[in-house]
Amino acid sequence: MSQEPRPLTMNDQRIIRKLALIQHACPSDGSVSDHYATAEALIRDAAGQGAELIVTQELFASPYFPQVEDETCFDLAEPIPGPTSNKLCELAKSLGVAIAGSLFERRTPGVYHNTFIVIDGHGEIISRYRKMHIPDDPGFFEKFYFTPGDAPSNELATEEADFGWRSVPVDGINVGTLVCWDQWYPEAARLTALRGAELLLYPTAIAHCADEDDDERARQIDAWQTMQRSHAIANGVFVAAINRVGVEGNLTFWGRSFIVDPGGRVIAEASGNDAQVLIAECDFSLIESTRRIWPFLRDRRVDAYGDLTKRFVD
Amino acid sequence: MSQEPRPLTMNDQRIIRKLALIQHACPSDGSVSDHYATAEALIRDAAGQGAELIVTQELFASPYFPQVEDETCFDLAEPIPGPTSNKLCELAKSLGVAIAGSLFERRTPGVYHNTFIVIDGHGEIISRYRKMHIPDDPGFFEKFYFTPGDAPSNELATEEADFGWRSVPVDGINVGTLVCWDQWYPEAARLTALRGAELLLYPTAIAHCADEDDDERARQIDAWQTMQRSHAIANGVFVAAINRVGVEGNLTFWGRSFIVDPGGRVIAEASGNDAQVLIAECDFSLIESTRRIWPFLRDRRVDAYGDLTKRFVD
Repeated sequence: MSQEPRPLTMNDQRIIRKLALIQHACPSDGSVSDHYATAEALIRDAAGQGAELIVTQELFASPYFPQVEDETCFDLAEPIPGPTSNKLCELAKSLGVAIAGSLFERRTPGVYHNTFIVIDGHGEIISRYRKMHIPDDPGFFEKFYFTPGDAPSNELATEEADFGWRSVPVDGINVGTLVCWDQWYPEAARLTALRGAELLLYPTAIAHCADEDDDERARQIDAWQTMQRSHAIANGVFVAAINRVGVEGNLTFWGRSFIVDPGGRVIAEASGNDAQVLIAECDFSLIESTRRIWPFLRDRRVDAYGDLTKRFVD
Repeated sequence: MSQEPRPLTMNDQRIIRKLALIQHACPSDGSVSDHYATAEALIRDAAGQGAELIVTQELFASPYFPQVEDETCFDLAEPIPGPTSNKLCELAKSLGVAIAGSLFERRTPGVYHNTFIVIDGHGEIISRYRKMHIPDDPGFFEKFYFTPGDAPSNELATEEADFGWRSVPVDGINVGTLVCWDQWYPEAARLTALRGAELLLYPTAIAHCADEDDDERARQIDAWQTMQRSHAIANGVFVAAINRVGVEGNLTFWGRSFIVDPGGRVIAEASGNDAQVLIAECDFSLIESTRRIWPFLRDRRVDAYGDLTKRFVD
């Protein structure tokens, strides 16, 4: 597992990596160790199938607690390094695979983050991303729990600071880490791709509410996949979303984890209901060949994008 | 046809507007007046069906001349106001409808633009947008012909300057004007939506090349529609793309003009081969109700988007 940065893939060589997404339920009556055990079994299964990078769903070690605002839920947060991240590091080392895991991080009393770490095949944490866009809707009270990730300052943007948009080399592939609500923001995908990411990962907890009808459910699933496919197309990168399944309280998580290639094709898609290891072989040489045909990055009007840092132009 | 700005639609009232897209062929052996006559007949048809805003395809009055680099093609450019825009203004006034038309503009000798104007129902030009992102691919040599639109400077961003990103009120709806290649850039959609646009218009000339197989053709059409649906979803706006049909030299234009609602649903789609007036009733009250359910604009990390003005972060 090299951590050396490398130039983007050349067109005349195929670079295949086996990516695995881990989707499962987190029953509300289970403990952190129960959910961890479920994930571990699936990670071992994935490694046994030859996966080189294995990615969890959002907050895989707990039920989706932001359904309610309950201060005792902060007890679920752990420092990183901490008990759960240490177990993931041990697991990665023992299997010799990279693991990207989504955890509830206790940074200091009163500052908790929705954090996504990348662990290499030696068991070392090589990247820590703290969710930048935080939602708040009925049943998804995340602004109560999660402090937004720090904004990168200009002078740190190109350094290996432990905050802001992240792209980290994993076994020769630049992996971009984002989380759930970030998936609705083209800005987040672009900023991560501009840091060299060739694969954008989105651990997710997205669900239907009990009062939504079938048409609205179908629309939401389609819109969710459409947005993430658009990030693949606009940036010429692979994209993977990893969602949980199962009913928790008023929410039915719709699973359907998927992987998209740089041309926007869905190359693998999981069940809507069941725990699953979703594996795809990704040929990262597609990135350069796709970008040569559709050279969107060449023509960005960086001289005219200044107002993107405004809330609204009024 | 009011030109007064207004707040975004309130949730408790429906605001229906009838939008028409004009899709047709421009045979290479036809003259500008032939193509204009084709478009005029379709515009009259649309107005007869009650359309309130009628939109042309990209460069509707000429064949797609950027297939080759030929300096005599600059003869197709006209000043605005000029002969073709004057005819469109007369037509809009006589029919009492708004027309958005895409023209090849001669700004001064040596400075030509791919320009998209909006004409109100009184026959007045109320907006002029000059294509900001200019492509250049084999068969699409647009960088030879089209000077990129001027970048808005910060102090002019909120004024009614005749360049940069544009949103203009048309009959009480804020209409955003973009052109073709812009459709691949989430930045362009966002910057236009941030100026209040409730409808993004993309006149387009997109085609298959003769050497592409069926799978690649299907992928390109799907990616094209996916990107524009993503702009509707990410920004909570209506989006319309207007593409030509017919074979011109090595290119087969794939038509399939379409209209998307703020939830990302395709509410109308045209033929892949035939001239057509595509009409949809758009309920602009959907914008506010959609944005209340999926409040993406609320949570943008404007403090962390500064690097979007960089070409690459290396």
